[in-house]
Amino acid sequence: MRNVNKKLDRNIVLVISYDGTRYSGWQVQKNSTTVQEIFQNALKNVILEDVDIKGCSRTDAKVHANNYYVNFKTSSRISVKNITNAMNRFLPYDICVKNAFEVSDDFHARYSCTGKEYVYKIWNHQIRNPFMHDYALHYWYDIDCENLRDVRKYIIGEHDFTSFATLDKRNAQNMIRNVHDFDVIRQENVIEIKISANGFLYNMVRIIVGTLLRIAQNKIKIHDIPYIIDKKDRKYAGPTAPPHGLYLNRVFYDNIEFKE
Amino acid sequence: MRNVNKKLDRNIVLVISYDGTRYSGWQVQKNSTTVQEIFQNALKNVILEDVDIKGCSRTDAKVHANNYYVNFKTSSRISVKNITNAMNRFLPYDICVKNAFEVSDDFHARYSCTGKEYVYKIWNHQIRNPFMHDYALHYWYDIDCENLRDVRKYIIGEHDFTSFATLDKRNAQNMIRNVHDFDVIRQENVIEIKISANGFLYNMVRIIVGTLLRIAQNKIKIHDIPYIIDKKDRKYAGPTAPPHGLYLNRVFYDNIEFKE
Repeated sequence: MRNVNKKLDRNIVLVISYDGTRYSGWQVQKNSTTVQEIFQNALKNVILEDVDIKGCSRTDAKVHANNYYVNFKTSSRISVKNITNAMNRFLPYDICVKNAFEVSDDFHARYSCTGKEYVYKIWNHQIRNPFMHDYALHYWYDIDCENLRDVRKYIIGEHDFTSFATLDKRNAQNMIRNVHDFDVIRQENVIEIKISANGFLYNMVRIIVGTLLRIAQNKIKIHDIPYIIDKKDRKYAGPTAPPHGLYLNRVFYDNIEFKE
Repeated sequence: MRNVNKKLDRNIVLVISYDGTRYSGWQVQKNSTTVQEIFQNALKNVILEDVDIKGCSRTDAKVHANNYYVNFKTSSRISVKNITNAMNRFLPYDICVKNAFEVSDDFHARYSCTGKEYVYKIWNHQIRNPFMHDYALHYWYDIDCENLRDVRKYIIGEHDFTSFATLDKRNAQNMIRNVHDFDVIRQENVIEIKISANGFLYNMVRIIVGTLLRIAQNKIKIHDIPYIIDKKDRKYAGPTAPPHGLYLNRVFYDNIEFKE
């Protein structure tokens, strides 16, 4: 399995999806099962090489992904179509490869990424939904989505999001992020909060959602958002919403031609 | 907990919903966990009486219920609202009480039932959906729903459904059932097959679905359905579709006023 004398001359991108319930997030960790570990083991069986894989993002335990991008360089001559099919045989039921592409050598799933979109799902009903236990936050009190949508005007644009980040070595020095879009959509009892940005600080979406729920409870006012942002202090924002409602939904790459 | 000298003068109906993944169906069985068993234990904690509960239907292992009706007679004076709330505290995450009503003494969840509606869900895509593993059948080949909808004309109405039943002591002598409605609806990659009838034979929906999939594969023709029905022999129909795509969706009762 060692890649001695082999030229890793192909750069392959896989688009995967996973139910994060059973995993301690993406990134390999000691003493707990992660998606990356399971994915690497499957890949080794398919391309018969030990390769270094790059994920587009770290996700926390129980966080899900509708579209997560991974790339790796390989000398294998397997077609992208066969990689997809073979990976789906080796992967467990809660992870799948949706698509595979060959890309130029300089593509990197994380560094080439120009933006991401997250979705946070809430089951908004007094009675829990037995089918959504691991897939949406159960929130009892009625949420006025029209009202919450007004947060758009304060959150879209370039801001220092220090107040909406867990202090962590994962956060770079630069705490400024550009939020491209924000929306709150209700379909019957399921609310989806969608937020896209050029990048996200650690726990940023979950803290924004926790703050929105405080607004729904009338404990924070919408017009307090600029003040909370200005404070650059985590304690002014709402709590961190639990992970199981969060989905990495889309990942954006500029000027990349994905060809099958 | 014995009901000596207590008058069981109230008849309570609960509408429940459950994710059947972890259970061996509704009905109490030795050596396996069933929804009825879990439900009875919770109820005992709430009304502090051992009561005999009646479910509207048996469901098989891994089959789900969006709306399942249960009734029991009790001397407890607890309000229906408090039963709902207390039951949802005692029940596990994958079972909930959606509503509770007090009904007349002669109501019986099974015998008073005049019809039921089942839904069968299919994830129709080449790649599996990690979020639907326990909630829909994964079916690879493209299904033409417009075509399958034509089965309506042969299946709606009163027929002897012997060909669409697993031979079992659960089936009564009379194998005639009246199918009230049948539809096949696609929403993107999820197909829902809906069927309502005055009653269902054992495995009837799952065998109808298995037959529809044979039609989708062009191995059975739609115009063969009357012939299959006429044969009154299980071997002419398609296979029994797996249980995890099946949901008891609605239960019909005539002339019953559900008052909260």
